[in-house]
Amino acid sequence: MFTLTFLGTSSGVPTRYRNVTSLAVQTTLGRDWWMVDCGEATQHRLQRIPLSVHDLAGICITHVHGDHSYGLPGLLASASMTGRKRPLTIIAPAAIRAWLDATLLHTELFLTYPLIHVDVDSAQRVHQEAGLTITRHRLSHRAASVGFRFALETHKSKLDKAALLAHGVPSGPVWGQLQAGHDVLLEDGRQLRSADFRITRTEQAAIVVGGDNDTPALLEQACEGAQLLVHEATYTEAMLIKAGPGPTHSSVQRVAQFAASRALPNLILTHFSARYHHREGMAELEAEARLHYAGTLFLANDFDSYMLDAAGVLRKVEARKPD
Amino acid sequence: MFTLTFLGTSSGVPTRYRNVTSLAVQTTLGRDWWMVDCGEATQHRLQRIPLSVHDLAGICITHVHGDHSYGLPGLLASASMTGRKRPLTIIAPAAIRAWLDATLLHTELFLTYPLIHVDVDSAQRVHQEAGLTITRHRLSHRAASVGFRFALETHKSKLDKAALLAHGVPSGPVWGQLQAGHDVLLEDGRQLRSADFRITRTEQAAIVVGGDNDTPALLEQACEGAQLLVHEATYTEAMLIKAGPGPTHSSVQRVAQFAASRALPNLILTHFSARYHHREGMAELEAEARLHYAGTLFLANDFDSYMLDAAGVLRKVEARKPD
Repeated sequence: MFTLTFLGTSSGVPTRYRNVTSLAVQTTLGRDWWMVDCGEATQHRLQRIPLSVHDLAGICITHVHGDHSYGLPGLLASASMTGRKRPLTIIAPAAIRAWLDATLLHTELFLTYPLIHVDVDSAQRVHQEAGLTITRHRLSHRAASVGFRFALETHKSKLDKAALLAHGVPSGPVWGQLQAGHDVLLEDGRQLRSADFRITRTEQAAIVVGGDNDTPALLEQACEGAQLLVHEATYTEAMLIKAGPGPTHSSVQRVAQFAASRALPNLILTHFSARYHHREGMAELEAEARLHYAGTLFLANDFDSYMLDAAGVLRKVEARKPD
Repeated sequence: MFTLTFLGTSSGVPTRYRNVTSLAVQTTLGRDWWMVDCGEATQHRLQRIPLSVHDLAGICITHVHGDHSYGLPGLLASASMTGRKRPLTIIAPAAIRAWLDATLLHTELFLTYPLIHVDVDSAQRVHQEAGLTITRHRLSHRAASVGFRFALETHKSKLDKAALLAHGVPSGPVWGQLQAGHDVLLEDGRQLRSADFRITRTEQAAIVVGGDNDTPALLEQACEGAQLLVHEATYTEAMLIKAGPGPTHSSVQRVAQFAASRALPNLILTHFSARYHHREGMAELEAEARLHYAGTLFLANDFDSYMLDAAGVLRKVEARKPD
């Protein structure tokens, strides 16, 4: 249903091992994909994975801070220089639109395609198309921040071959017409309705991707019926207390406890402080998470890809690695 | 005298092999260094070389285009998050200052240090300190563009040991006092003046770093007495003609012919179109350059470092390589 590829998993500043935040979200609806946040050098990350900026349907920005947005100008410019014509949707705070307008003006950037801005404050449902609904959910951070819920519904139909054979209709051109949705008048005078001989399977899944946030419980409504939460976990609970009230981030413990309380089956943590960007640091964060959460858990690395299937099972998949 | 490290050598868009434009300029004056242009992900490049953003004295921006400026917000933010207090000089078009002001406002970026903006249009001499003068020189590009000349003058003084020995003053504490600039009264009543026993050697060098520019001859005045020109050479002359008048870039041929006409001893070409980012492409550019220029020539790669000594000799030096 969903494939998520992490383009950056560091909080605040990039390090040699992790870039600042960006996430690519693909769905089984087609080639179109979405991006959540776009830190500096996200376009450089895209060069190392098999996703094209020309198939990018839209970019969701959780909040205005630079480690979630400074990759926008370069990505927009490069899409233009490589010939994009298709409109690009930007679901973001109004200030991001104002900043992009200033960027276009002052740096003489002339895009070859329209930008469609959807203000995250305009409505809760920020995008809807056949099969995909994106809603935004307010969070608590020192800058106004939101999370996004992607709800997917797909319909697959196949021929009910057993029923056709039971009706004495053998495999042949008639099957193709029925599969294509056409009703068929047989030579023996019988009328076959396509709808009677197709089995439609509906699959649903929902994921929630948080922005910077010190209160995971604000995602309670968003997580209703969701199979996966992706949330920042900037540091341990001990470090959060030491850092004080200024940063307004979440600890691993708080996110893990929230996910456990909602019985969420899958949890991916990201947005780690640079102090943990080594094996021991990540092990410390993981240990804290496992203390409080017994579901399927991953701590994302840059370039990690995860697939969530229709049964709600999340697994890490092979993605092209940087060389 | 100067050490130049190329942080990005691609025109327009980054590729997997070359980032967009930025150049680090170090001098023998001390640890302070300067940056010319700051394309997106320049701060990521800095993580791979032994230069600290805390020793960065100033950033010169040749023109407003994003491939020369979109790294500024992230670099400024990261310097702030890692505790910079020292003011940072930005020598740039007024539009860059306006864009940075918009960035600070809309993305809620609060710097821990002052930005000092020097408008490239305010005067030709944009910076002067003991030993270093930076001037800007107008170029021709579809956006207003300038080049920068860095003129360096250093003074080294050492004891004239032969003269001291000839005056019957043996090695000892008196030498140290004279070297430190103090006059000395000897026990025998003689007064020794420090200035009489120190030899001062003055060394000078000047380099010119162009911005995007379709008319190298505009740098004639800037190159007067300079030992090195760094200039964009986006493509071959044939490709320049094919591209037509829109891009307003230079061909390798035009830059090489200009450098030859001014008898410049050293030339470094950079800012190569993505179409040349492979061995054969670079060989094609180099062949065209050597047809027209017989001096010391380099086509820069990302992370290349070059040292210009007081004798005007330019050589490639070992820099830390990305892993």
